[in-house]
Amino acid sequence: MSKKLSTEAYKGVRDFYPEDMAVQNQIFTIWRNVAEKFGYQEYNASVLEPADLYRAKSGEEIVNDQTYTFTDRGEREVTLRPEITPTVARMVAARKRELGYPLRWYSIPNLFRYEQPQRGRIREFWQLNVDIFGVDSLQAEIETIQMAYEITKAYGLTDADFEIRISSRKILNHITQTLFGLDFEKSQKLLKLTDKKNKLPTDVFTATAEGILGDVPEGKKIKQFLTLLNSQNFEEFTQNLQQSAEEHEGIRETREVLQALEKLGITNARFDQTLVRGSDYYTGIIFEVFDKNPLNRRSVFGGGRYDDLLDLFGGEKVPAVGFGAGDVIARDLLETYGKIVKPESSFPADIYICLMNKEVAEYAQDVAQALRGKGKRVALDYSFRKIGDQIKNANKIHIPNIICIGEEEVKTGNLKIKNLATGNEESYKL
Amino acid sequence: MSKKLSTEAYKGVRDFYPEDMAVQNQIFTIWRNVAEKFGYQEYNASVLEPADLYRAKSGEEIVNDQTYTFTDRGEREVTLRPEITPTVARMVAARKRELGYPLRWYSIPNLFRYEQPQRGRIREFWQLNVDIFGVDSLQAEIETIQMAYEITKAYGLTDADFEIRISSRKILNHITQTLFGLDFEKSQKLLKLTDKKNKLPTDVFTATAEGILGDVPEGKKIKQFLTLLNSQNFEEFTQNLQQSAEEHEGIRETREVLQALEKLGITNARFDQTLVRGSDYYTGIIFEVFDKNPLNRRSVFGGGRYDDLLDLFGGEKVPAVGFGAGDVIARDLLETYGKIVKPESSFPADIYICLMNKEVAEYAQDVAQALRGKGKRVALDYSFRKIGDQIKNANKIHIPNIICIGEEEVKTGNLKIKNLATGNEESYKL
Repeated sequence: MSKKLSTEAYKGVRDFYPEDMAVQNQIFTIWRNVAEKFGYQEYNASVLEPADLYRAKSGEEIVNDQTYTFTDRGEREVTLRPEITPTVARMVAARKRELGYPLRWYSIPNLFRYEQPQRGRIREFWQLNVDIFGVDSLQAEIETIQMAYEITKAYGLTDADFEIRISSRKILNHITQTLFGLDFEKSQKLLKLTDKKNKLPTDVFTATAEGILGDVPEGKKIKQFLTLLNSQNFEEFTQNLQQSAEEHEGIRETREVLQALEKLGITNARFDQTLVRGSDYYTGIIFEVFDKNPLNRRSVFGGGRYDDLLDLFGGEKVPAVGFGAGDVIARDLLETYGKIVKPESSFPADIYICLMNKEVAEYAQDVAQALRGKGKRVALDYSFRKIGDQIKNANKIHIPNIICIGEEEVKTGNLKIKNLATGNEESYKL
Repeated sequence: MSKKLSTEAYKGVRDFYPEDMAVQNQIFTIWRNVAEKFGYQEYNASVLEPADLYRAKSGEEIVNDQTYTFTDRGEREVTLRPEITPTVARMVAARKRELGYPLRWYSIPNLFRYEQPQRGRIREFWQLNVDIFGVDSLQAEIETIQMAYEITKAYGLTDADFEIRISSRKILNHITQTLFGLDFEKSQKLLKLTDKKNKLPTDVFTATAEGILGDVPEGKKIKQFLTLLNSQNFEEFTQNLQQSAEEHEGIRETREVLQALEKLGITNARFDQTLVRGSDYYTGIIFEVFDKNPLNRRSVFGGGRYDDLLDLFGGEKVPAVGFGAGDVIARDLLETYGKIVKPESSFPADIYICLMNKEVAEYAQDVAQALRGKGKRVALDYSFRKIGDQIKNANKIHIPNIICIGEEEVKTGNLKIKNLATGNEESYKL
């Protein structure tokens, strides 16, 4: 081995040194606490899934271009999971009859996206996933949105810093399919375009929408479409949409969710007709938590109802609502809002034992074990350097207290626990 | 989608339903508690690593045949990590100068082994990895063996159920290279054979060893080799090995470790000259915890010193000692020794709220939030089935207490928390 090996991680993934891992654990703890407070149980599965699981709803192109998919020696096509919703649907479908409903599950999986190398995007990330199965009523949406709200607050954001955007696939499909008579393919195209509305120049958006709507000579549909998209609020939108005395189901549901959230004290939710969400499997209410901070305007959480996904596995229907939240944005938010854990507050041990020489090692180990028995986390310095250097190391790795052991201490058994910050000493006898 | 999707997981991996995840978390907690008691800090890295990281010490064949390795679109060869020691070596090497020593790190990574499909072996598993860097002296071995001992005890084993086997690569290399004058390749062959001694018929073992030693006409070496391997204990072995008045370094080190462990109260450690351990990177003391239960005689933990591994990345030497422990065997042991967590003891919520109808949902949500505010984990039944069926579900998912809410409760605000096991009721007012 004359050639030196590189210490670099694989492109697009992260190493978690202890100080990074402390932040990951801080995020995971926020997620866990809220999920468990609402009675959700943790599950997990392998990173490896049959590629077919994603083909069904994502299409061949996405599986081939945006996921890590390869063929194993048993000629099986295997994918590193890009999301966990298909997995949880598979697991629930497998035990559909045995499970008790409402079923509340959460998981913190690592997920993989095969982004184009040059874009420098992250290829492995962690995500909280919360799902509730077996609930037809809007209580499922209300509960999961409430959880997303509580997690966002735990990141350090105030109500003014973010908003919860609510939309409905039923309304969107009603517009594209019933109102404008588009077929499924064109409907999907118009929705994907709508999703990008805020990122496109107005004229490009309008021209593309016109093309999809196919009413260039008259221009009636595009006018109606733009009126709907530009409605300033939910009431204006419903008035612009309303064709008859009877309220559309999607409108009724959206109204009910918005009202329920307000009653729960969540006042920063609003209807957003341009919210589409990427995944094809959504069937009803969809939502996202949006960070309004001018520096990082972006989606923090996203989710919705997907009542048909379990149909892929056959058998009876199982209604489902879920959402996901990523670790990268969580870390950014904790940093932005000053909530990130500091290295000195996540010290690796309570007491650091400095050893004068090798002869005291046995005694020092006994002291360490005795202190561990009392619930202390204890590390020993086995470098046998000068005591001053050992204390420097305790400071460096943020251990708050030290005990120095030499021949004197072994003989008398009189030990002193010294706090490095205050200089205070406490006596201790083995 | 007329064809039904399979609900099966990918071959050789496991789904973790909440009852399985509870056991995983039980195992992880045992691991974490011991690691943190000894002042170890958690780190992690991606599942994806450059394939070159494993080629250096494992060889082309192993990387190609026993790991998941594939080429990405950037023409990079990437491997799903089969172990984390090369990763931790890479990470420490990358920040060698900045880190404080002794450096104590642990991780609970998921690892991947591409076993032959027909053998039905597990392809993804979790493993505790504990490593201490920067300690030249045997204190590093003593500490890590002590941790392995404590974890084994936490699995429920008594001292009589297991033994800690200790060997030394220095002794093994001394025998094969100095005593018998074998070159590196033949030395490795003889060690790999020794590792399988207990699994091979005596005559096959002897004939193969004879072939490697290459002294068929005389038979002196094989006789000496068998005498060494058949020595009944450490003292007999050292007498059989001793060539001069001066004690071999490996012998001295092994003696020191055995004595130190005994002084720490660990009396079930013993020297085992047939212990080799698979990995090529070990350089000194090696050890394993061995379960003596006749039903599952096997290695529970394995580790040792690997002082040269960081050399691959260049720069100064960093001595290192570490061990690994797998989740599959941990689960088996917890089951065997009756320590496994029961589903009813890991209930998903403290209180289950049963709702008479949709009209009481808003009030029930307020009750749930108030109880959550007091630290209770609360789940609501949104099925709107008969109350009896809702209570059945609470029992099924092991939630110990219920509150039933109907119009009466909304009107009066008088609630009753009922314990399902005892029937006891407690009054509660919002």
